[in-house]
Amino acid sequence: MARSRKAVSCPVETTIRVVGGRWKVLVIHYLLEGDRRFNELQRLLQGISPRTLTKQLRELEDDGIVSREAFPEIPPRVVYSLTALGRSLEPVLLAMASWGEGYAPEQTAGRSGSR
Amino acid sequence: MARSRKAVSCPVETTIRVVGGRWKVLVIHYLLEGDRRFNELQRLLQGISPRTLTKQLRELEDDGIVSREAFPEIPPRVVYSLTALGRSLEPVLLAMASWGEGYAPEQTAGRSGSR
Repeated sequence: MARSRKAVSCPVETTIRVVGGRWKVLVIHYLLEGDRRFNELQRLLQGISPRTLTKQLRELEDDGIVSREAFPEIPPRVVYSLTALGRSLEPVLLAMASWGEGYAPEQTAGRSGSR
Repeated sequence: MARSRKAVSCPVETTIRVVGGRWKVLVIHYLLEGDRRFNELQRLLQGISPRTLTKQLRELEDDGIVSREAFPEIPPRVVYSLTALGRSLEPVLLAMASWGEGYAPEQTAGRSGSR
């Protein structure tokens, strides 16, 4: 009711801001499969630096998507999981996956080197 | 069939690559409402520079999402619209919008200044 016209696109922007780029979507993707330790995520997200992964996880924590649990063991074990809010992103990721599956590889063929 | 394990997350990555960041999603959002001229898009996407908008539109063209039609008028009129492939992104944007609407503003309150 109180929304201005300008706010029309806000919900999509909110999602984009929270889900962010490639890495965050992949983190959420893998956490939908189950809880993960930092090293597991780093292995799954080939090419991500520990620094970048830490940053992504911290932002996802701040946004209430991921929760981090540290177990006082030796060596310390830190486990990341999705919150209920994080799990509610599943339909968004499924819609993305479904669209991506229908996107034929030849359509991207012309793109290599164009950036 | 021929897919490796590594490829599991590819469809989501494909979508993220094509839809890209905030600007591309917003361009697609506005083009779902109807065809637009460059200046209209620039006005709607408050804060985007002409150079950035041109880049986004060109990449979306290269990916087969947006089509560009130039009418030989004086002054020349250039109209951007979604291709059928571009329109097929609507469910993805709807899922994003739906999730974003449910994301309470107070959840982001702690984020300001944290980046």
